[in-house]
Amino acid sequence: MIPHDSIVALATPSGAGAIAVIRISGEDAIVIGNSVFRSIKNKDLTTQKTHTLHLGHIMDNSKTLDEVLVSIFKGPNSYTGENTIEISCHGSTYIQQQIIQLLLRKGCRMANPGEFTLRAFLNGKLDLSQAEAVADLISSDNEASHQIAMQQMRGGFSNEIAKLREELLNFASLIELELDFAEEDVEFADRTQFHELLNRIEFVLKRLIDSFAVGNVIKNGIPVAIVGEPNVGKSTLLNALLNEERAIVSEIAGTTRDTIEDELVIGGIGFRFIDTAGIRETEDVVESIGIRKTFEKIEQAQVVVYLLDSSSQMTDGSFKQIQIELEKIKNKFPLKPLIIIGNKADKLNENQKSKIKNEIDNILLLSAKEKLGVDDLKNQLLSFVNTGALRNNETIVTNTRHYDSLLKALDEIQKVKYGLETNLSSDLMALDIKEALYQFGMITGQVTNDELLGNIFANFCIGK
Amino acid sequence: MIPHDSIVALATPSGAGAIAVIRISGEDAIVIGNSVFRSIKNKDLTTQKTHTLHLGHIMDNSKTLDEVLVSIFKGPNSYTGENTIEISCHGSTYIQQQIIQLLLRKGCRMANPGEFTLRAFLNGKLDLSQAEAVADLISSDNEASHQIAMQQMRGGFSNEIAKLREELLNFASLIELELDFAEEDVEFADRTQFHELLNRIEFVLKRLIDSFAVGNVIKNGIPVAIVGEPNVGKSTLLNALLNEERAIVSEIAGTTRDTIEDELVIGGIGFRFIDTAGIRETEDVVESIGIRKTFEKIEQAQVVVYLLDSSSQMTDGSFKQIQIELEKIKNKFPLKPLIIIGNKADKLNENQKSKIKNEIDNILLLSAKEKLGVDDLKNQLLSFVNTGALRNNETIVTNTRHYDSLLKALDEIQKVKYGLETNLSSDLMALDIKEALYQFGMITGQVTNDELLGNIFANFCIGK
Repeated sequence: MIPHDSIVALATPSGAGAIAVIRISGEDAIVIGNSVFRSIKNKDLTTQKTHTLHLGHIMDNSKTLDEVLVSIFKGPNSYTGENTIEISCHGSTYIQQQIIQLLLRKGCRMANPGEFTLRAFLNGKLDLSQAEAVADLISSDNEASHQIAMQQMRGGFSNEIAKLREELLNFASLIELELDFAEEDVEFADRTQFHELLNRIEFVLKRLIDSFAVGNVIKNGIPVAIVGEPNVGKSTLLNALLNEERAIVSEIAGTTRDTIEDELVIGGIGFRFIDTAGIRETEDVVESIGIRKTFEKIEQAQVVVYLLDSSSQMTDGSFKQIQIELEKIKNKFPLKPLIIIGNKADKLNENQKSKIKNEIDNILLLSAKEKLGVDDLKNQLLSFVNTGALRNNETIVTNTRHYDSLLKALDEIQKVKYGLETNLSSDLMALDIKEALYQFGMITGQVTNDELLGNIFANFCIGK
Repeated sequence: MIPHDSIVALATPSGAGAIAVIRISGEDAIVIGNSVFRSIKNKDLTTQKTHTLHLGHIMDNSKTLDEVLVSIFKGPNSYTGENTIEISCHGSTYIQQQIIQLLLRKGCRMANPGEFTLRAFLNGKLDLSQAEAVADLISSDNEASHQIAMQQMRGGFSNEIAKLREELLNFASLIELELDFAEEDVEFADRTQFHELLNRIEFVLKRLIDSFAVGNVIKNGIPVAIVGEPNVGKSTLLNALLNEERAIVSEIAGTTRDTIEDELVIGGIGFRFIDTAGIRETEDVVESIGIRKTFEKIEQAQVVVYLLDSSSQMTDGSFKQIQIELEKIKNKFPLKPLIIIGNKADKLNENQKSKIKNEIDNILLLSAKEKLGVDDLKNQLLSFVNTGALRNNETIVTNTRHYDSLLKALDEIQKVKYGLETNLSSDLMALDIKEALYQFGMITGQVTNDELLGNIFANFCIGK
C-alpha cells in the first residue's frame, strides 16, 4: 500500500530567488542524494546523523552543478516519515532544472502534487484533516484563515471527531454483542446513556455544521457587492480601505504579494469586493442587461454596499430615485445586509448632511478621499461576520468535504436516535451506527479510498 | 567596519509555494531565533551544535504562527561567516510576513539587497569577484553562463589575477627598495626578469580582455536580428527553434520558467532574437521609418538572419529585389555574419530548389513548419560563437567592472613596460606599478571603497 520509490520536487516557489530547496523522499533518498553529492569534508551522507546539514557540491559526473547545503532527515523522523533530504541550492531556475533532471536520471521520480503530504498521511504522521489543513495553511492569506488552518493542522478538529467516534464505537460494540445474544434478549448498552451520547453527538455535529457558514466565508473571503453609478468613487473607496494593509505589505521588501485589486483584508478577515454597474433604470436595452447582471452579483454576495455621491446636486427627484432603487434591493433581497454610503461627504455643510440623513435612513456619510468615516464602514462590514467562534478559538469547519460528511453523519445519528426512541431492533440500529462511524472516519482518514485520496491531494501544490 | 546587527530576509522567491526559507544572520541570530521558537523537544537553540536542524513552532507570545524547521549555523562556519539561522516555514505569504514582522520586532533589521553576501565578503568568506559570481550564478539561465559563473565563484578568475598581482608586488617592493638606496645606484630588481614578467602579465590581461567579447554575449545572450517581410514564417521559425527546450522544461512540472518568446537557448548558449520589419523599399514614408528602424536593430545585433518565403512565386523580379536587399545589408554591415534562409522549402520541387540556390548564394533552405533543416540553422548560429574558450574551461570575463579594471591595468602595465624600455627613473616607474596593482586589487576586492561595494551589492536580490 505504501510506495517505497523516491520522489523529488522543487519545494520552494518557482522562479529565481536567492535560494531554492529541492526535496527528495523515499527509502533510497539519502543514497541517491549521496550519489550526486561531493562533501567539502569528504563526508558520506549515508553515515550521517538525522537532522544534520552538510556543505558540498552537486556533481553531474565531473561537472559541478552547484554549491549546496544538504539536510538529512532519517525516517520516521521526517515530514513524510520516510528518509528525506533537502538540497538547498542557488535560486537560478537553470540550476534547479539541472539538479532535478540529474536526480531523475539517478532513480528519483517526479512527485505528484501533494505526494509528500500523502506519504506523511500513509505513514501515520498526519491524519487526513490535518493533511488537508496543510494545503489550507499554505493558501491562507489573512489572519482568520491562517488561525483556522493552524488549529486544524494541530488536530483540534480531528480530535473532537475522533473522541466522539470512539464513544460511538464503544456503544456499537455493545450493541453488536447484543446481537450475539439475541435469543436471550439482554441489553448490554445502557439505553439512557446511549441516548445521552447521541444527543451530545448531535449537538456537536450541529455546531460544526453551523460553523461552516462562517468557516467557508473566512476561507474564501466574504463577497461584498458594491452597487453604484460611475464616478461615485468606488475605486477611491477601495483604495481607502486597502490603504493600511498595503502599507504593511510594502514595509517588508521582498515579500510582495499579488494583490488582486478587489480583495481586501479587514480586521484579519478577507473580503472580496465585487463591482457592479448599478441599477439605475433606463430605456436602453443594454443598460437593462447591466441591471440584470447587477442583481446576479448581489445574489452571490453576502453583503451589499450601496454607494452614492452625496455631494452631487440632490434634488427631491434624485432622492426619490435613490429611495426607489433601495426599495428594489430590499424587496428582492430582504435578508441580505445592506450598507448605504454617501461618499464625498467632505463637500457637504451641516445642513446638507442633515437633509440627506432625513431622506435616506441609516445612511453612512463618509469621504473616501479624505479617509473620513472609513473606519465606521470597516466596523459595519466586520459586524456581519460572526467572529465569536474565531475569538473563542472554537473549531470551525472550512472544508466542503468535511461539511458533507458531517451532514451525512448527522443524518445517520438522527436515524439511530429515532430508532432508539421507537425501539428499533438492535440489528437495524447497528447498521445506522456503522454508517455514522463511516462518515466520521471519512473526515479523519480512518476510512479512505484511493479516489478520495486522489481528489484531496490533487489540489495540493507540487513539492508539498 | 564589519556590522554586528542581525539582518533578516526571505531567501526563497516571493509568492506561495510548499515551503519558504527566512534567513537571519548576525551575532544575535541564534538568540533572536530562540526567543520566538518553541522546540517540540524543549530544546534551547543557543546550546545546539552547528549544522543541525530542529522541529518546533514559531510563537508570537502565546499565538502559534507556524510549525517550522530551524537550521543552525555557528559563525564562522556559515555562508556569511556570522551566526546564522534559517527558518523553513510553510510557503504562505501571510505566514512569511508574520514571521518576518515578528523577527523585526525582536531586534532584527530588514536586510538590504545582497547584504548576506556583502557580509560574507567582509568576513573573508569570499573575495569580491566570487561574491559577484553569486549574483551571476543566480541569474544564469543557460549552460554557458552557468559554467562561467560557477568557475568564477570557485575562484578561477581571482586566482589568476591574485597570482599576477603577487608577482608584480614582489617587483614593486624591490623597486621601492632601490629608491631607499637611490644614491648608491643599485638595481635589486632584475630588469630582464621584470621585463619578462610584464610581457607575461600583458599577455594574460589581453587574453582576459579579449574573452570579454564572448563572455559578455554569453552572459547577456547573443543578439540576432531577423529580417523578413510579414508571413515569411518568423514566429514558426522561432517556435521550431524553441521546440526542444520547451519540451525539457515542461518535463519537470513545477519548474516552469518565464519564457520570453524571443529568448532561446541553443546548444547551451543564449540567443536573443530581435524581430524587424524588413527592409523592402516603398514610396511610403511610414515604411521608410520602418527600414531605418530595421537597420538600427541590425546595428545592435551580432548576427543577421535574412528570412524569405521560398514557396512564394519567385519571378526574376523578385530575385532581383532580394539580391538588392541582401547587397544593401552586406554593404552597410560588411563584418556582420549573415544567414540567408529560404523558409517553406517543403513546398518546393527539386527544380525550384536548384533555381533558388543558383540565384541566391549560400541560401539555407528549410521548413520551420515541418522542422526540416532547423538543426543546420542551429549549427550555423553556434558557429559564430567562439565557444573554444568555454570548451577549454579558460577564464572568461563577463563583468563590465572587471573588464574596465583590466583595461586600466593593461594601460598601466604598458606604461611600466615603456618606462623600463626607456630607462625611466625608478620613482616614476614605482608610481605606475602602484596604479596597476590598484586596478588588480579592485577586481578581487583587496582594494575597495564603500561606493564600489554599494554599487556591486545593490544589484543583488534581497535575501542573498
